[in-house]
This record gives sequence, structure tokens and C-alpha cells, in this order.
Amino acid sequence: MKIYFTLDPRPDLKEPLVSEFPEIDFTFHKQLDESELADTDVLVTYGEDLNDHHIELSEQLKWIFVVSAGIEKMPAQKIAERGILVSNVRGIHKKPMAESIIAHILSLKRALPFVYKNQQNCEWNKKARLSELNGSTALIIGPGAIGAEIGRLLQAFEVYTIGLNRSGQPAPFMNETYRIDELKEQLPKAEIIISMLPSTKETKNLLSYEDFKLMRKDAIFMNFGRGDLVSLGELVRVLEDELIFHMVLDVYEVEPLPADHKLWKFDNVTVSPHFSSHSSRYVERSLEIFKPSLKKWLSGDHDVENKMDILRGY
Amino acid sequence: MKIYFTLDPRPDLKEPLVSEFPEIDFTFHKQLDESELADTDVLVTYGEDLNDHHIELSEQLKWIFVVSAGIEKMPAQKIAERGILVSNVRGIHKKPMAESIIAHILSLKRALPFVYKNQQNCEWNKKARLSELNGSTALIIGPGAIGAEIGRLLQAFEVYTIGLNRSGQPAPFMNETYRIDELKEQLPKAEIIISMLPSTKETKNLLSYEDFKLMRKDAIFMNFGRGDLVSLGELVRVLEDELIFHMVLDVYEVEPLPADHKLWKFDNVTVSPHFSSHSSRYVERSLEIFKPSLKKWLSGDHDVENKMDILRGY
Repeated sequence: MKIYFTLDPRPDLKEPLVSEFPEIDFTFHKQLDESELADTDVLVTYGEDLNDHHIELSEQLKWIFVVSAGIEKMPAQKIAERGILVSNVRGIHKKPMAESIIAHILSLKRALPFVYKNQQNCEWNKKARLSELNGSTALIIGPGAIGAEIGRLLQAFEVYTIGLNRSGQPAPFMNETYRIDELKEQLPKAEIIISMLPSTKETKNLLSYEDFKLMRKDAIFMNFGRGDLVSLGELVRVLEDELIFHMVLDVYEVEPLPADHKLWKFDNVTVSPHFSSHSSRYVERSLEIFKPSLKKWLSGDHDVENKMDILRGY
Repeated sequence: MKIYFTLDPRPDLKEPLVSEFPEIDFTFHKQLDESELADTDVLVTYGEDLNDHHIELSEQLKWIFVVSAGIEKMPAQKIAERGILVSNVRGIHKKPMAESIIAHILSLKRALPFVYKNQQNCEWNKKARLSELNGSTALIIGPGAIGAEIGRLLQAFEVYTIGLNRSGQPAPFMNETYRIDELKEQLPKAEIIISMLPSTKETKNLLSYEDFKLMRKDAIFMNFGRGDLVSLGELVRVLEDELIFHMVLDVYEVEPLPADHKLWKFDNVTVSPHFSSHSSRYVERSLEIFKPSLKKWLSGDHDVENKMDILRGY
């Protein structure tokens, strides 16, 4: 059995894996080499390097392990037709991403950009408006695994959490949960609005200028899900008209965000380059998910952790 | 009875106070006016505007309510001689300060300074080393009310907390507590070292270059207590020699830190202008502490909240 990695883990991570599964023929490359695909049984990939042709070449392929949470760049139709199992590292983003989100919120509340700016100018300046996170209300749109971790941490900061999901059924670490079609009624309630939505037909352009008008003037809006939730044009209008206090974006309709795009220039936005899930512990953690899944797979049980519905998109 | 405020709360905070205590003669000034002191019974002050002469002038003074946690700038000897009660707003700093501290830690772990810098240059750059807070160990030196709140939040982030206090008795939200004279044994254990110590004879110059050599190379050191814990000269040597990963300072041996001081210029330090306890809700909260204390006082019970030992310094 051949397992082909289109990523190359550090030696201290790779070696224990190889020795734990001596029966497996492992191949590790820094990027995808088409000539390796024909006899590959299991493919381990970041998920952005695959196209229809690759799936056709991979005649023996039965399982794709995606070292990422998003799978929208994958050739979903082809994979589904072939009945190839897809699983990912969903849980892995939970902690680093939730930490990034809390970092951005606290940074704004406690005026860290102001501190950094004044330090550049060697200026002792106390004239900032420092506010507090505790006591506020947060709306988490799409409270899945990451949203739950965000909710857990926000509740530790005594924040009241409202979740919006498809069903409206109670979600973990949410004080209240509503259906996503109740969005407009919930938007005015929150000082902090966080989207963790994946990219699907339903979520594309879900938010518009009109929705931002429903938000509080002191609101912070954060998009850490997928960039097509709201168009860049709408975001620029919202920023120009100062409808809300601040926006923190990690994802964009177009990525990378072009260097000459207006969005970079506003004071009321933080432009993070879609890396808030990054972590020096990322591959280590991926392998911690992969290993037990591989054991299960080898025993004939294909019900591995984080199985995805590739057509549904999550 | 006259209560003299050397600060002037917003009307929406002042008016309810005045109407709640109709028997009191309230005077509110933006700064201290000596001519008001002779007939003042209770003084409400930020604590930095008083000297020996003011205490002598305040012949009727029985209680000083300090709208601050630090009292080291007060004429302690004179106040003690006269037996004037001093109480402060100790609890008030807890939440904003703990939020500032977690903000700084997460900002460094999740590379926010890198994000802000690249945004200034309109540069989409993912090449930062993002690390994680969860799973690390923090040493909290002086785990009082604020330290406990920091411990509580750090534990929510799955951080192991070690407290150092005078007695070594278990402190709230600390996984372990040791005596402060065991400092040198504890320093190598932690990725995060936070001093919340007040300024006393014992804490002055408690830390030196040699102590920083005991810390881990990847450690973050934070001083949010008082600046005389370690001299500016020692700090500069530590930064020059890159003994640790980063320092976050809110307090300094000399404040304000002079504009031409070397300290501003290092990449491995964050210079915060002693304002991490500031909050748009500060005076509101102070009055929430003052009002019940005043009721108690008026009823003849002088055992008010947060009574201080002015000579001991806390």
C-alpha cells in the first residue's frame, strides 16, 4: 500500500510515522508530482494542489486526507463520482484560530495597535480609549468546532454568546442559538460578530451593505470563515461609511488581496493574510489525527475521523 | 459632612451619587484645590496629587478613597500618623488589566504586530511563525486580585499557572504556588513570566540580569506591577543580549519613559505607557465600590472594602 504525501513533514515528525507503519510504502514530496499518482492508495495533501486530471491519474486512490479545514478548491465532482473517501483535520484549527480571534478582539479593546504605533515614534501617549471585552455580546455565525472553541473562550471572558446555525438547535458554548435565516434579527444585538462559515452556495454573498447597517455602531465584524461571504466592494463601502467600529478580515473574495486594493488603507480594518489557523504545531497535530485514522483504515474500518461530504462542502 | 473629589466624574455618574446621598456636601474638582481641604471629611482622589502639606491642611480628614490600585506616591507617614483610613479600588483593575495582559500574550503568539506592520505596507505576507498559548506554563509573581483573574483566564486557555507569593500558600487559579524566595527555581519553568508586584522595599530591584538568564530563551516577560522591580539598565542589557523572546512592559523605573531612551527601539520589547488598567468604565466602577463603602462609613462601620495599610504599601 502506498501513501503519498504532497507535503514534507520535519524529520522528527516523519520518522516516527514511517517506523510506526512499516508495512506502508510512504512517499513524501514538497509538492505534487503527477508520476506518483498511478499507484497511490492514500493521498495526504493540503488540498489546493488537486485537479480533475490528478483524480483520473490516481486510479487506485481510495482516501484523501486533507491537511486543511477547507476543501472548496478540490475537484469535488470527480472525487464524488469515484467514491473516494475524504477526511480532513477539522479539529486542528480550533485552538490556533480561536486564539487568533480572541487576540484580535482583545487587541482592539485594549488599544494594542495604538501602543505599537506610539512605540515606533518613541512617544509616551496615554490618550487612547481602552474598553473591555467582559460584559459584551458576541454573535458567532457558523458555530462548528472552531466556533465552539471561540464560544468557550469568550464565555471565560464573561461574554454572552449567540450562535447562528442551519438548524437553530443549541450549539456548544452558545448562550442562545438561532437559525441562520434569523440573521437580521440577531445582528443588532452584538458588539462582536464573527463569521466562521464555510464557502457553500448558501453562504456566498450572504452578507451585504444592508446587513452592516443593522449592526451596532460600536461593533467589530470578523470574517475568519471564507471570503465570498461578502464582496470586497461591499466591505469597502461599509468602511468608507464607517457603519461599524472595526473589521478584522482573514479571508477575502480575492486572495491574495491585491497590493493596490483600497481595503489595505482604512484605519478601521485589520487585514490578516488568511493565516490565522497557522501554527508552528500544525503538521505535528495533523499527524496526531492521521495516525489513528490510518490504523482504523488499515483494520478495514473506513469510518475515520472528520469524514467529509465533498459535494456538500463540509 | 463634606466629601471632596479631586476628579470630576461624568454627569451621568455624578448625579445619581449626589441624589443617593442628599445629606452629604459634595464638591467635585478636576484637580486639587488646597482651599477646599480644611473642612473636607472624606477625600476621593487618584492618589497622585497629595503631599504632606495637604494632609496638614486637611484637619478634619478621616478617610481617603483612592481611585487607583497603587498608593506609593501618597504621603504615607503623615497619613499614618493622623490615623486616616485609606481604601482603594483594588478590584477595579482586575478585568481590564487581565484583558490587557492576555491581549499582549496572544498578540505575540498569533503575530499581530507582523499583521499590522504588513498592512502598513499593503503587503500580503504569510511568512510569520505563529505559535499557540495553549499548553504553555505561566509564572505569576504576586498573584493578588489581578493575578487571580489572569490565572483564571490563562487556565481557560489551558495554560498551567504557577504563582509566587510571600507565604507560598495556595493562591486562586494557580495550579501551584511557591514562596517568592523560590523565584530562581521557578523561572526556568515558564514560557510566560508576569510580575504584578507592588512597589515595596522587598520588591525593589528584585529582578536582575542574572534572573533573566534563568528564563527560557522563548520566554515572554511582562511587568505590569511596578517599574522599580528591575532597573532600566538591566532591561536594556537583557534586550541587547536577547536573553528571552520578548518583553512587554507597562511600568518603568522612570515614568514617563524618556523619548530618547534606548528601550523604545528594540524589536523584542513592547513599550506600553502605564495604562493597561485604563478603561472607559473606570470611574463608573470606582463609584460602584465607593457607594457601598460610603453607606457603611455613614452607618459608623469604618471597616470598608479594600482598606489599605498605607505604611506596608498595599
